[in-house]
Amino acid sequence: MTYELYYWTGIQGRGEFVRLALEDAGAEYVDIAREHGDKAMEPFLEGEHAEALPFAPPFLKAGHLLIAQTAAILDYLGQHLRLVPEGEARRIHANQLQLTIADLVTEVHDSHHPIAAGLYYHDQKPEAARRAADLRQHRLPKYLGYFERVLERADGRHALGAHSYVDLSLFQLLAGLDYAFPHAMARLRPRLPRLAALAEEVAARPRIAAYLASPRRLPFNESGIFRHYPELDDPD
Amino acid sequence: MTYELYYWTGIQGRGEFVRLALEDAGAEYVDIAREHGDKAMEPFLEGEHAEALPFAPPFLKAGHLLIAQTAAILDYLGQHLRLVPEGEARRIHANQLQLTIADLVTEVHDSHHPIAAGLYYHDQKPEAARRAADLRQHRLPKYLGYFERVLERADGRHALGAHSYVDLSLFQLLAGLDYAFPHAMARLRPRLPRLAALAEEVAARPRIAAYLASPRRLPFNESGIFRHYPELDDPD
Repeated sequence: MTYELYYWTGIQGRGEFVRLALEDAGAEYVDIAREHGDKAMEPFLEGEHAEALPFAPPFLKAGHLLIAQTAAILDYLGQHLRLVPEGEARRIHANQLQLTIADLVTEVHDSHHPIAAGLYYHDQKPEAARRAADLRQHRLPKYLGYFERVLERADGRHALGAHSYVDLSLFQLLAGLDYAFPHAMARLRPRLPRLAALAEEVAARPRIAAYLASPRRLPFNESGIFRHYPELDDPD
Repeated sequence: MTYELYYWTGIQGRGEFVRLALEDAGAEYVDIAREHGDKAMEPFLEGEHAEALPFAPPFLKAGHLLIAQTAAILDYLGQHLRLVPEGEARRIHANQLQLTIADLVTEVHDSHHPIAAGLYYHDQKPEAARRAADLRQHRLPKYLGYFERVLERADGRHALGAHSYVDLSLFQLLAGLDYAFPHAMARLRPRLPRLAALAEEVAARPRIAAYLASPRRLPFNESGIFRHYPELDDPD
């Protein structure tokens, strides 16, 4: 089956978590908006697909299925691309971890958009400074300490004791945070040895390494979720 | 099987979405923290359970499984309590809708806590006023219009064309929004006839009606997610 991924062009965004799973599995897929423009998503958002109406990208077309919401897409792909260990308990555990990653991703987004997604960062800078400070001082240590603990409780190298899409998502999370908050992450990293090692291992997986070196991997930028605004990072 | 629900005492919060599913199905469950205090959750949050480490309540113990994250719990209960129509496509669609409800719930929380969950509302009132205005003017119409459309595309009465946990969650969402933003919801309600009818139908389901009339249903309050601060609602 050739999957169709629908996500905004020009940014990694939430679509990147899906892209990494497809790339790691060597799945055939078409990145529809990059091929045909963002407008190619509109019919689906306007309800053209008979069964499911996505609220927002990313969404994935898999045969007759249309699946929206990053964690739901990964739950599906995890099973179909063997990116999650066998068994109900592991599948549920993976989903729970992915949802917790998604919660942090939303908090990272809101660190530069604490007032309104529909306004520019420029229009909410003082509020962003306050929210980003809280993210760096309280939320990042709490979430990343949690994920470090999850690795420690498993085999020390994989969130589920074996490779899964959750490891790919943790790699992406770390990559994004390193880009957005280099000083804060330099401060936190000594407490996160397993996460740091996992990110290196994922980046070295042959298909992921090839993907990261390809033009398909867009650079992070200040239109995406992980944005580098030096004034929102720890001071020098 | 007797399920064990773990959630903070004193508020409905995210635990209420799970509680409504358990109540509607007539499932046997123990609301552990209400029986034994919030401290009864600590061993799990500290890692006592061998398989899964929850990041935060709610979590559900179902036999040997420990499941955290509201949408993951409902995905599991939906299948085991027959609260979702049969078939992979319907299960995935339900999960996607629940995740979209969860996104709005997070936005509602952040309307009174736009800067930091760890600070009091009092410490972020000006920011909350800006964020709540955006929620009322842009986000609620967008999300609720979406859910109205989902009902319209199904049978007009159920999100999935048949009763499911998603309908229970939409009821809870409407109940919470009516409590928190009565003026804004009075303004929006004429555009949401199907959602309004769904909420009435759910409230009239025998087990839900019995639950809502019981002391197990806590009133909404200003410690929960849906808070009524008149200054965050539409003006009179």
